[in-house]
Amino acid sequence: MSFKIELLNNNVFKTAFESITQIVDEVVLHLDQEGFKVNAIDRSHICFVSLELDYTFFDEYQVEVPEKICIDTQELMTILKRMKKNDVLCLSVEENNFVIQLKGDVDREFKLRIIDSDYEVPPLPSIPLPTKIAIPSMILTEAIKDMELFSENLTFKVTDDYLYIFTDGEFGDSEVKYLHGENISDTVQASFSIDKLKDMLKSSKFSDDVKLSIDNNKPLRLDFELLTDDGKLSFLLAPRLEVDED
Amino acid sequence: MSFKIELLNNNVFKTAFESITQIVDEVVLHLDQEGFKVNAIDRSHICFVSLELDYTFFDEYQVEVPEKICIDTQELMTILKRMKKNDVLCLSVEENNFVIQLKGDVDREFKLRIIDSDYEVPPLPSIPLPTKIAIPSMILTEAIKDMELFSENLTFKVTDDYLYIFTDGEFGDSEVKYLHGENISDTVQASFSIDKLKDMLKSSKFSDDVKLSIDNNKPLRLDFELLTDDGKLSFLLAPRLEVDED
Amino acid sequence: MSFKIELLNNNVFKTAFESITQIVDEVVLHLDQEGFKVNAIDRSHICFVSLELDYTFFDEYQVEVPEKICIDTQELMTILKRMKKNDVLCLSVEENNFVIQLKGDVDREFKLRIIDSDYEVPPLPSIPLPTKIAIPSMILTEAIKDMELFSENLTFKVTDDYLYIFTDGEFGDSEVKYLHGENISDTVQASFSIDKLKDMLKSSKFSDDVKLSIDNNKPLRLDFELLTDDGKLSFLLAPRLEVDED
Repeated sequence: MSFKIELLNNNVFKTAFESITQIVDEVVLHLDQEGFKVNAIDRSHICFVSLELDYTFFDEYQVEVPEKICIDTQELMTILKRMKKNDVLCLSVEENNFVIQLKGDVDREFKLRIIDSDYEVPPLPSIPLPTKIAIPSMILTEAIKDMELFSENLTFKVTDDYLYIFTDGEFGDSEVKYLHGENISDTVQASFSIDKLKDMLKSSKFSDDVKLSIDNNKPLRLDFELLTDDGKLSFLLAPRLEVDED
Repeated sequence: MSFKIELLNNNVFKTAFESITQIVDEVVLHLDQEGFKVNAIDRSHICFVSLELDYTFFDEYQVEVPEKICIDTQELMTILKRMKKNDVLCLSVEENNFVIQLKGDVDREFKLRIIDSDYEVPPLPSIPLPTKIAIPSMILTEAIKDMELFSENLTFKVTDDYLYIFTDGEFGDSEVKYLHGENISDTVQASFSIDKLKDMLKSSKFSDDVKLSIDNNKPLRLDFELLTDDGKLSFLLAPRLEVDED
Repeated sequence: MSFKIELLNNNVFKTAFESITQIVDEVVLHLDQEGFKVNAIDRSHICFVSLELDYTFFDEYQVEVPEKICIDTQELMTILKRMKKNDVLCLSVEENNFVIQLKGDVDREFKLRIIDSDYEVPPLPSIPLPTKIAIPSMILTEAIKDMELFSENLTFKVTDDYLYIFTDGEFGDSEVKYLHGENISDTVQASFSIDKLKDMLKSSKFSDDVKLSIDNNKPLRLDFELLTDDGKLSFLLAPRLEVDED
């Protein structure tokens, strides 16, 4: 088992794991000649996450044979939080350890125990969700914060012109209205857990815009794509079906 | 029941409610052709608060018949905390809801349930308090923080030249001395709860200066007035009588 | 009992007590014609601290007879935290009180009860520790944060060229490697409690650099010295002997 990858733009990597750490306790990192991949699903099987970073995204990428490395996400995150902006992030393995080097003013090296695991997460299921809109990640993040004031669930509703995000709580209601500018003819809506959406949006800085794919009472898909087109973070979230359709 | 008011300078409105929320759980908003008014008194009847915003303070003000709207202050505050600096704040009613719209990059709308209430708070009692001094709000706020190090109560003492604020605790004493520059002949002093003063000073950014009105063992009155002379936030706080006079 | 000292550069004074407050509950301040001194040792006798501020460090220094003043460190710290950057710090005594005046936009005065105490802490023991290296205080502080991810103890190891700081935890390891630039021939190492080091480094802003003195399984000495050469903060920390040498 042997590979070595290096990355100057360490923040994208950390940002992706901000959410993955919320969703799963352990994760399998896949490395092959094409790139670095993670597929994960939460315990309750409500939320899927998929991270793909092409080999071109890295500043150095030496992977000769495919590797699978299972690690504890919380432990990984405590290390990634210690990164400084200009640290070069280097990943490798050594015996039974995942080695994370941070090269900056001083050189720092962390070793994480690799976990024995045969568990294989399938890739993100492909579900047809024809209604797609793009929205600035920050606007979606802020809207979710508005929604949590009065409720634990929210509804996305897409009409010709607008994306509505709303809740209907006992003590109050929230509604955000966003002019989406897409060419959409049908009205669709579905409801979701606000907590799960918040977990997913911990990674909202992965890209300036996020693509929402939605259908009536179907799962929500969120895609964050790097402008450089060599990295993608995607989520699939099961709907809350107990909410009546209008 | 129908009105509509709009406000660009949303921060003054939020600032006023920072303190009101600390003092009372529910509040009645009064709107009539003259303006927007709130009178409230805490459960223990120690602390009165009065907010008056003239109709000219608002950028749009359409109130045809006088209105009384009782709402939960905590719920209101969670919404006001979601305001961004440049959001236009619009208030109206719709059926049994108090409607708060925040118009900015995206339009957001919150509805708060109106509470049934016959409870009527009288206006701020008019008590003659001849000794009056003005002091920068920030200096008063900082002085209260000095006072809470060693005690739960403080004393204001006004002499010819100085306002003294002091405590006498078991493990230590604090004293702040402020040259007031007013024309005062008598020495007066009274003692108050530091916690209540801190509640009141949550709104200290309402205006740069605050006017203190004080008399021996009488209530303290604090008046925060907008420079534009179309808004005022006033407090009346009962004294702590168990503290001996010097 | 009578003295009066004044200080414009109040931050150095506060910074020194950030750590002293962590290490001891009560402290004896010594003042004589040479300067201001504090010696303290923690309850478990693991960590010594010594602060020396020469009379020239102060902007006014009037001490006619030697003084010993025992005070509560937590209470002192709550007052020092209330200092603003430009406040002149004035220290004196009045009856049974230690008087701390902060002279700024307004004048503030705090009185702390002096504690009766005959307890005398000996000065910092002089232990020969021939291996000495200087390191930026910030780098040492950051390294300690890296170490606490996976362990409660760390090891310092000095070789010809490098200072290594490392831990060996159950779930992961951390290592920082710093090129020290000193002329050192032997390799020495010793292990210490991370919590105690964190307590000591609360004062790391006392000076830009810190001098480490170390020997095999001997105590660690840290010296922070003011560039103006009229103040010094030193620590001596007992080693963790249960850790095996390599």
